[in-house]
Amino acid sequence: MSNSNQQAGSTSEKAGISPPEITNISAINQIKNKRRQQPTSQELINGILEGNRTSLSRAITLIESTNPDHFEKASEVVQGCLTHANKSIRIGITGVPGVGKSTFIEAFGKHLTELGKKVAVLAVDPSSSLSHGSILGDKTRMEELVKDENAFIRPSASGETLGGVARKTRETIILCEAAGFDTIIIETVGVGQSETAVHSMVDFFLLLKISGAGDELQGIKRGIMEMADAIVINKADGDNIKKANQAKVEFNRALHLFPSKKSNWQPKVTTCSSLTKDGIPEVWNTISNYFELTKESGFFQEKRNEQNHFWMLETINEELKQNFFNQPEIVSLLEKSKKAVQNNEISSFAAASQLLKLYFDKGAKAQRDKGSE
Amino acid sequence: MSNSNQQAGSTSEKAGISPPEITNISAINQIKNKRRQQPTSQELINGILEGNRTSLSRAITLIESTNPDHFEKASEVVQGCLTHANKSIRIGITGVPGVGKSTFIEAFGKHLTELGKKVAVLAVDPSSSLSHGSILGDKTRMEELVKDENAFIRPSASGETLGGVARKTRETIILCEAAGFDTIIIETVGVGQSETAVHSMVDFFLLLKISGAGDELQGIKRGIMEMADAIVINKADGDNIKKANQAKVEFNRALHLFPSKKSNWQPKVTTCSSLTKDGIPEVWNTISNYFELTKESGFFQEKRNEQNHFWMLETINEELKQNFFNQPEIVSLLEKSKKAVQNNEISSFAAASQLLKLYFDKGAKAQRDKGSE
Repeated sequence: MSNSNQQAGSTSEKAGISPPEITNISAINQIKNKRRQQPTSQELINGILEGNRTSLSRAITLIESTNPDHFEKASEVVQGCLTHANKSIRIGITGVPGVGKSTFIEAFGKHLTELGKKVAVLAVDPSSSLSHGSILGDKTRMEELVKDENAFIRPSASGETLGGVARKTRETIILCEAAGFDTIIIETVGVGQSETAVHSMVDFFLLLKISGAGDELQGIKRGIMEMADAIVINKADGDNIKKANQAKVEFNRALHLFPSKKSNWQPKVTTCSSLTKDGIPEVWNTISNYFELTKESGFFQEKRNEQNHFWMLETINEELKQNFFNQPEIVSLLEKSKKAVQNNEISSFAAASQLLKLYFDKGAKAQRDKGSE
Repeated sequence: MSNSNQQAGSTSEKAGISPPEITNISAINQIKNKRRQQPTSQELINGILEGNRTSLSRAITLIESTNPDHFEKASEVVQGCLTHANKSIRIGITGVPGVGKSTFIEAFGKHLTELGKKVAVLAVDPSSSLSHGSILGDKTRMEELVKDENAFIRPSASGETLGGVARKTRETIILCEAAGFDTIIIETVGVGQSETAVHSMVDFFLLLKISGAGDELQGIKRGIMEMADAIVINKADGDNIKKANQAKVEFNRALHLFPSKKSNWQPKVTTCSSLTKDGIPEVWNTISNYFELTKESGFFQEKRNEQNHFWMLETINEELKQNFFNQPEIVSLLEKSKKAVQNNEISSFAAASQLLKLYFDKGAKAQRDKGSE
């Protein structure tokens, strides 16, 4: 086809003159070829379902794209994978920088692939645009796992709001599951809001700690300990073993003071060393026990249903807020309202009422105008 | 006035005929008197600022009223009191039913009034419409405090959403402060979402517990322990003293495992008996220390500013959601979307996109129609 096109074009050229368009034609063909190489959404779906890693990576790139043209195609791929998803277990892992998340995931992930599992490792890190992808960015820390053909590692989508990263991660989970990965690990750093988002998209939530950590752990968000299904004290090797065991006793005692979970699961505390691999199989045993218990009780499916519902509502709420706070009239009044509230000139509720009136009157007026046509 | 009115009316009667209108006139006058008795918003403001309890009660009733006519007047009163508010300390108290919240507040409140403080006790209990005002409904449990002229007790506004109850409580706080109450206690039951709302409207958050409580405390929401600035183990009397002291040690140990608070305050654990009054002064000492520390560091004011800002945004978010989910088109599509998401026929995000498109297209169409006029 491209050849005949070229010939058709060349017939209009004057004889004897060397065609300067040849460069252009070759460029056009390159673009055409490239377009032809872009697989259709159905080709991507087929590739993913066959377990083709290139298809999977390309589809995830589509999901992560900020190009509006890619949005529809990405949706088609997700939709096509959806009925083949939901067959994995999803494990969230959090911990502040310094607890050794990457080396833990390397050791834990290798243990899982040795058990015959197919492991996908994703990350949620809305700050990664600032820190240039700190999470999983340094793949050298996972040098064994990254070479493992039964593992798939994908760094966090960057340069995004938490809501955006959460959506992309949830959709990436669907694709990974459709591609046959049966164990999805989602890594996040335990600061800000990201770990709450991750907690809302996984079946099991693991908090990684190290022993004797005082000040260095204060960056972790309050409430994380109560979200954890397991606390694993990492770096329990050499001189650290005794301290790690002490920490284990303390955390166990503390967790018993917490109210029991809806899952009826009593969170476990264990120690491990990502270096010596001691305790790594026990982490998996704990997680296995959890899935046995919750799948039998029906809690596993119940929680997934709740999460699906949660993300539908959460997406709606986020969009509604975005629409409101992006209105130019609101932007200009909001700053004044904030100050007036801070100076006790107006109550929080009266200020909110003013802003809402401005927003809805605009819509209501449009509605009225429409009705009186 | 009403007498002269009646005489004026009687001149038009025919002589010798007993006037049947007399009943109506008296009824009309009753209504007129009643109208005349309804104080204006300025009268209410003046009354409140003078510390008149009747004015305060009436104004709170206006705030709690669901009659739209009362809304504007209530807003005026709140607005008028606003500059006189913000001079109190606000203490939230939570705990599951059975820990003795009412008797604790009775003992603690009496201790405060004996110290010369003026104490207002409010409640947040969105479930009270179901339980017919369980919180503070049984005022007999506070029989001393209810008679105390330096205390003001007001049960929860009922039959409302949590957002509604929160707004009303926040506005009631403003009125109580303007009326000269310097210590505001907000009671809530530690289930559902109400304690998070209360935590966002107080300066100090106290969790009431009893010792040896296992199953009976499981109703308490996860995450509350981390919100607490103090845990007070109640009913530390008689045979319970030893168990209460053990519980104190355990909770103290557990709290030290938590990351430190933004206020730099290390939460305290104490024991008390609302019966013998042992430990009640210590609760107040703890709270005093907290206020000394946080007022000096500036955290006290910073937190109040954040709370004011939070409630402005929260009110906006709630209204946006309500508007969305009350649209008839949304209501009918939402049920279908929920089922489709649950059956994995559509992703949470695609379902949310459909609903949002329906909502905004309606508004956008109206805007377009308006533009093409």
